[in-house]
Amino acid sequence: MARFTAEHQLFRQTVREFVEKEINPYADEWEAAGTFPAHELFRKAGSLGLLGVEYDPAYGGGGADHWYTVVLGEELGRADCGGVPMAINVQTDMATPALAKHGSHELKKAYLEPALRGELVASIAVTEPDAGSDVASIKTTARRDGDEYVISGSKIYITNGTQADFLTLLARTSPEAGYRGMSLIIVPTDRPGFRVARKLRKLGNHSSDTAELVFDDVRVPVTNRIGEEGQGFYLQMEQFQKERLIAVYTALGGLQRAMERTAAYLRERKAFGGPLLGMQYIQYTLAELQVEIESLRQLAYAAAEGVVAGENVTRLATMAKFKAGRLVRRVADTCLQFHGGAGYMEEMWTSRYFRDSRLLGIGGGADEVMLRVLVKTEGLEV
Amino acid sequence: MARFTAEHQLFRQTVREFVEKEINPYADEWEAAGTFPAHELFRKAGSLGLLGVEYDPAYGGGGADHWYTVVLGEELGRADCGGVPMAINVQTDMATPALAKHGSHELKKAYLEPALRGELVASIAVTEPDAGSDVASIKTTARRDGDEYVISGSKIYITNGTQADFLTLLARTSPEAGYRGMSLIIVPTDRPGFRVARKLRKLGNHSSDTAELVFDDVRVPVTNRIGEEGQGFYLQMEQFQKERLIAVYTALGGLQRAMERTAAYLRERKAFGGPLLGMQYIQYTLAELQVEIESLRQLAYAAAEGVVAGENVTRLATMAKFKAGRLVRRVADTCLQFHGGAGYMEEMWTSRYFRDSRLLGIGGGADEVMLRVLVKTEGLEV
Amino acid sequence: MARFTAEHQLFRQTVREFVEKEINPYADEWEAAGTFPAHELFRKAGSLGLLGVEYDPAYGGGGADHWYTVVLGEELGRADCGGVPMAINVQTDMATPALAKHGSHELKKAYLEPALRGELVASIAVTEPDAGSDVASIKTTARRDGDEYVISGSKIYITNGTQADFLTLLARTSPEAGYRGMSLIIVPTDRPGFRVARKLRKLGNHSSDTAELVFDDVRVPVTNRIGEEGQGFYLQMEQFQKERLIAVYTALGGLQRAMERTAAYLRERKAFGGPLLGMQYIQYTLAELQVEIESLRQLAYAAAEGVVAGENVTRLATMAKFKAGRLVRRVADTCLQFHGGAGYMEEMWTSRYFRDSRLLGIGGGADEVMLRVLVKTEGLEV
Amino acid sequence: MARFTAEHQLFRQTVREFVEKEINPYADEWEAAGTFPAHELFRKAGSLGLLGVEYDPAYGGGGADHWYTVVLGEELGRADCGGVPMAINVQTDMATPALAKHGSHELKKAYLEPALRGELVASIAVTEPDAGSDVASIKTTARRDGDEYVISGSKIYITNGTQADFLTLLARTSPEAGYRGMSLIIVPTDRPGFRVARKLRKLGNHSSDTAELVFDDVRVPVTNRIGEEGQGFYLQMEQFQKERLIAVYTALGGLQRAMERTAAYLRERKAFGGPLLGMQYIQYTLAELQVEIESLRQLAYAAAEGVVAGENVTRLATMAKFKAGRLVRRVADTCLQFHGGAGYMEEMWTSRYFRDSRLLGIGGGADEVMLRVLVKTEGLEV
Repeated sequence: MARFTAEHQLFRQTVREFVEKEINPYADEWEAAGTFPAHELFRKAGSLGLLGVEYDPAYGGGGADHWYTVVLGEELGRADCGGVPMAINVQTDMATPALAKHGSHELKKAYLEPALRGELVASIAVTEPDAGSDVASIKTTARRDGDEYVISGSKIYITNGTQADFLTLLARTSPEAGYRGMSLIIVPTDRPGFRVARKLRKLGNHSSDTAELVFDDVRVPVTNRIGEEGQGFYLQMEQFQKERLIAVYTALGGLQRAMERTAAYLRERKAFGGPLLGMQYIQYTLAELQVEIESLRQLAYAAAEGVVAGENVTRLATMAKFKAGRLVRRVADTCLQFHGGAGYMEEMWTSRYFRDSRLLGIGGGADEVMLRVLVKTEGLEV
Repeated sequence: MARFTAEHQLFRQTVREFVEKEINPYADEWEAAGTFPAHELFRKAGSLGLLGVEYDPAYGGGGADHWYTVVLGEELGRADCGGVPMAINVQTDMATPALAKHGSHELKKAYLEPALRGELVASIAVTEPDAGSDVASIKTTARRDGDEYVISGSKIYITNGTQADFLTLLARTSPEAGYRGMSLIIVPTDRPGFRVARKLRKLGNHSSDTAELVFDDVRVPVTNRIGEEGQGFYLQMEQFQKERLIAVYTALGGLQRAMERTAAYLRERKAFGGPLLGMQYIQYTLAELQVEIESLRQLAYAAAEGVVAGENVTRLATMAKFKAGRLVRRVADTCLQFHGGAGYMEEMWTSRYFRDSRLLGIGGGADEVMLRVLVKTEGLEV
Repeated sequence: MARFTAEHQLFRQTVREFVEKEINPYADEWEAAGTFPAHELFRKAGSLGLLGVEYDPAYGGGGADHWYTVVLGEELGRADCGGVPMAINVQTDMATPALAKHGSHELKKAYLEPALRGELVASIAVTEPDAGSDVASIKTTARRDGDEYVISGSKIYITNGTQADFLTLLARTSPEAGYRGMSLIIVPTDRPGFRVARKLRKLGNHSSDTAELVFDDVRVPVTNRIGEEGQGFYLQMEQFQKERLIAVYTALGGLQRAMERTAAYLRERKAFGGPLLGMQYIQYTLAELQVEIESLRQLAYAAAEGVVAGENVTRLATMAKFKAGRLVRRVADTCLQFHGGAGYMEEMWTSRYFRDSRLLGIGGGADEVMLRVLVKTEGLEV
Repeated sequence: MARFTAEHQLFRQTVREFVEKEINPYADEWEAAGTFPAHELFRKAGSLGLLGVEYDPAYGGGGADHWYTVVLGEELGRADCGGVPMAINVQTDMATPALAKHGSHELKKAYLEPALRGELVASIAVTEPDAGSDVASIKTTARRDGDEYVISGSKIYITNGTQADFLTLLARTSPEAGYRGMSLIIVPTDRPGFRVARKLRKLGNHSSDTAELVFDDVRVPVTNRIGEEGQGFYLQMEQFQKERLIAVYTALGGLQRAMERTAAYLRERKAFGGPLLGMQYIQYTLAELQVEIESLRQLAYAAAEGVVAGENVTRLATMAKFKAGRLVRRVADTCLQFHGGAGYMEEMWTSRYFRDSRLLGIGGGADEVMLRVLVKTEGLEV
């Protein structure tokens, strides 16, 4: 069980300090602003080596093992807001894994390396207004014209969308070919025809900017494609595993902190003649939640071990994402409830956590999409 | 089962139009503003007879039966925001029932009558920073000084708190006498020593203003007391039944509308080759929720019948409040989930409903307080 | 709310005494025997007027209102075993409603009248080995041959099956006509070709005999058909409402008694320094269950009111059956759990209740079939 | 993640064959008999090395690592009945761990060695009629009289109780000393004054004999005590970890087999126009259960890793036992439900599994006792 060595713990301390010094003091301000200074913060994160812990040192990555990613997620998840950790997750584990694994040397030099330094902000641009979790039905096209792709369409709910320097975009390069007609393409946002249609207001994660993007004959070189033409859907499915795992690790940090804060509050808060934490119903309810949190943790760690061992962890990652999406809602709801009226105030962390955590069951593939995947992995198809 | 006569249906139509014309067009604006023009809106509501449907016509009430209150709640609950209906509920069923039932003729002339016309805005001031749902531990005192009470203390989470013209305040008139040392007192907010300490920002119900109030030797005539001295705790417990019932009726309207809107959305929204509503998992999940909503409705209607019959409905009202508090969270969560990414956007009603509905399990006595009451009503004490 | 008049309460007393004198003293013996003396017991029940409370006095019925049926179910549900009440329910509300409503005068004289006196034991024979809850796919045929039907096929899980004098059988009279090709036919069990293939051993309800029946060219007069030819499916669907309602009323009686017995046990049982009922976790858990039981009760009573008012109660009856099927499992599980090791012993009532109550979610249309119906009633189809 | 080596897999095969050849063919017979031939079966198990996989080879143990115990449990859990695996679990991991770890050489030679060969059948005798899960309140005394203990009292719910050759008994050696006044003592069942008061009939696990035992001045040598006098409570708490872990591993095998059998059944079973497994609601429900089963598995494996690493696994073992106790009920209930009427028949495995699995939430410390422990491990005490 000694998964975390002393070096991992040292790294944990580094991330924790980064969160406490560089995120938490500004969380309220960024939440109110509906955005955060991605370039500034990412540069700091980059200089600490937080943006590419597992990536190839040839491009500035840390070349570390996957447990460092677990640590990164768990510690980011303890931040005072969910939006900024999510934005970092996009940079490190959602928009860049395919690029790092399947991109050409030149493409990695041009985009991955500066992304790992935090100089370029990345977004993953897959979801579309009419497609949602059904990735296979996206409509954005990348038409070949000589050495260029000409991109048309729109993407929605794009994290970092108003600040991104480049997007990892999924588009149809052979519209008639279905799953096999999509490609992943790096799209710099300074190209003519690209625009941020609007910044979206969300239930939570206010500190993270989310946008609807429009592509009106945006031209990028064909060399910006990641991997083979027609492989985009599969590369994205592979990349989704990283997205789901980092989301789960981050959730774990948030869950544990929420439980700690709630117990601490209930220990102080008196009612009906004693501290609320002295009430058996409250104790048992919290204990039950701890069982589920620990279960999720072990499920996630099993997936992490699989990653370390080079195994396909689709099954475990999907299960963990599903369970996390459900569990954060139950925990956030209970923590808020046990804070009573104070818990409903915006000034109490419970309100923000309730709003922020609600996204996990939707983003990165909704719960129902996870179940859809699991029907296959569990052999429940007819 | 013909609980609702043609006249009730006519009244339902009146309330529905009031909601559609006087609330919904302004809901977004008021939500953004963090308040709504209570005096203006209440006057309109008062002129339609919505503010005192069951109250004595001698003071401007409708003298109608309790089913009109059920209709009022159900229709208010269909509004585009939860804050304004809640504010109206405070006026009609939280701050005035004890006054109407136990107040002196002069007190009712001075406060109830203008409240029913919507000229005076009322608040119920019970909760305190250190007391929460444990009403018995409030600390605000009303010291007798000749013909006056001198009030000192503070109240928190007070709906309509920044706009109220008078408060129905629970205070200790005999500090040493525990439950039997409290009184309910009408406190006009124009008295020296009273101030709104701050307006509170909440997770939801943004259109409703909520405040922390401070009383610094506020003087009111002893004749402002409702009922006997020392009876305040009991009067408030009695008044809580009305509060819980109207909250449940209002929740029912919101629940039903949420289900209707969700089904309508899913009927249009396509994914994985067809409308989402065509998916069995979604259909069955919604059907299960409908069973619980209908169960809650029948529980609430049974309580309403009890009110009509003049029975003590503590047991049924408490059960309904408890079940409603839990159910709205489950329904709001599911509706949001089934809207996917769109459901997480602030522009979609699901976000607001998710935030607004979360209060029900806390306000008017938290779930755990309801269970505490039920342990007694169900004979589960040792 | 005064649904139950003094006369209903008198009837309640009659049923309660019947249960206490005629069922409970023999429950253990009948459970061990795997059957009970239906003819003997039914004759006693018949003489008390318990077998046809709402039926036409012209055939020996009580001509009473539907609340008497509610009372009957609630009181039978308090019996020390689930099997015998279920057997009585079959006689009164599952095998005879269609006969009573749509049968010819001669058929009612021949079968209904003696059934109400308890002289003839009835079964409802719908379910087949390959059809289960999917009634539309039954295969048993009733071929017309002159003035007779010649019946071939088999039926399974037939309550009272080894003791029945006649069956209300659903068969295909026009095999090619689907739903519109079925008829309900009274089949006396003394006809050549009929046999009890085997008596089935079940998880619970041991006191009730359950059988698989085989029909090998069994001949019955065409006049034994209930209603029009081809109307059988619809008549059975109508009859199912009665079956579901009586099952719910009976469940309510069982639920309430289980809660009473559990609270009584926990009040006596000491552990960790006091009576178990003094533990808050246990108190709140039981209080939560009471909320759901009361919700189910009000849902069922609303359906009952609908019956009294002559309304179509498919929606409410289906909801109540679904909720009851789920709730009895939760309550039985909790009651057993709170009895600890003693609760797992066969000599404790909890074991039998756990086994007996488990059937409700399956019989009379499984939970999933109820959801299927509700998808229609709630407008959730595409 | 390669926790299981090829050698573990070989052992898995051995256990699986043992189950298939030595248990399953006789399961129905033993269930009907209410007992099984423990001496005969245990000798076979002993000869295969199944009864002491981790114990010291000096006493006939396998000296293997803890993962063999995991394998043993998982494979036993796949048996056609729950009673026999439980009886074996008692022999290997409930009645002997303290003896193996803290017993004297002579005591181990006399009892452990023949127990590992399957020649002596062991029981763990802790629970008492008035103590249940509250071990600290047991009343059985072992009074010192020279070189002997004189034992008086009674024990209940004792697995293997009618066949045991010796008991590992917890008794008060210093009645006034509370927790610190108990000792664990090996009691051979051939001593005067010992008797089986009665064999108990249970809801499930019929193949396992369960008894109430009475001790009427039973004399055993003081040297039969395990460890120091007064340490019994602590040794038993330590031993409980083994009990809980083997119970969880065994549950995992049962859970997985139940899911496999259910999917296989639903693949064949047709209704409403196709195989039941084709229904999305059923698929998703089963997929959700798989997530929880896998979560439990990873929680249990984490505990197993802790055991291997020599860590105190109280926290993880308690969590796993709690979660397993809840999950088996949910899975057993769902499997039975999805089998419809057939699932309620005794001839279908679902009925037995439903009855057998129900014990897990009670035995080895009830759910509520697990929560009680977790309140401590999670720091939720005031």
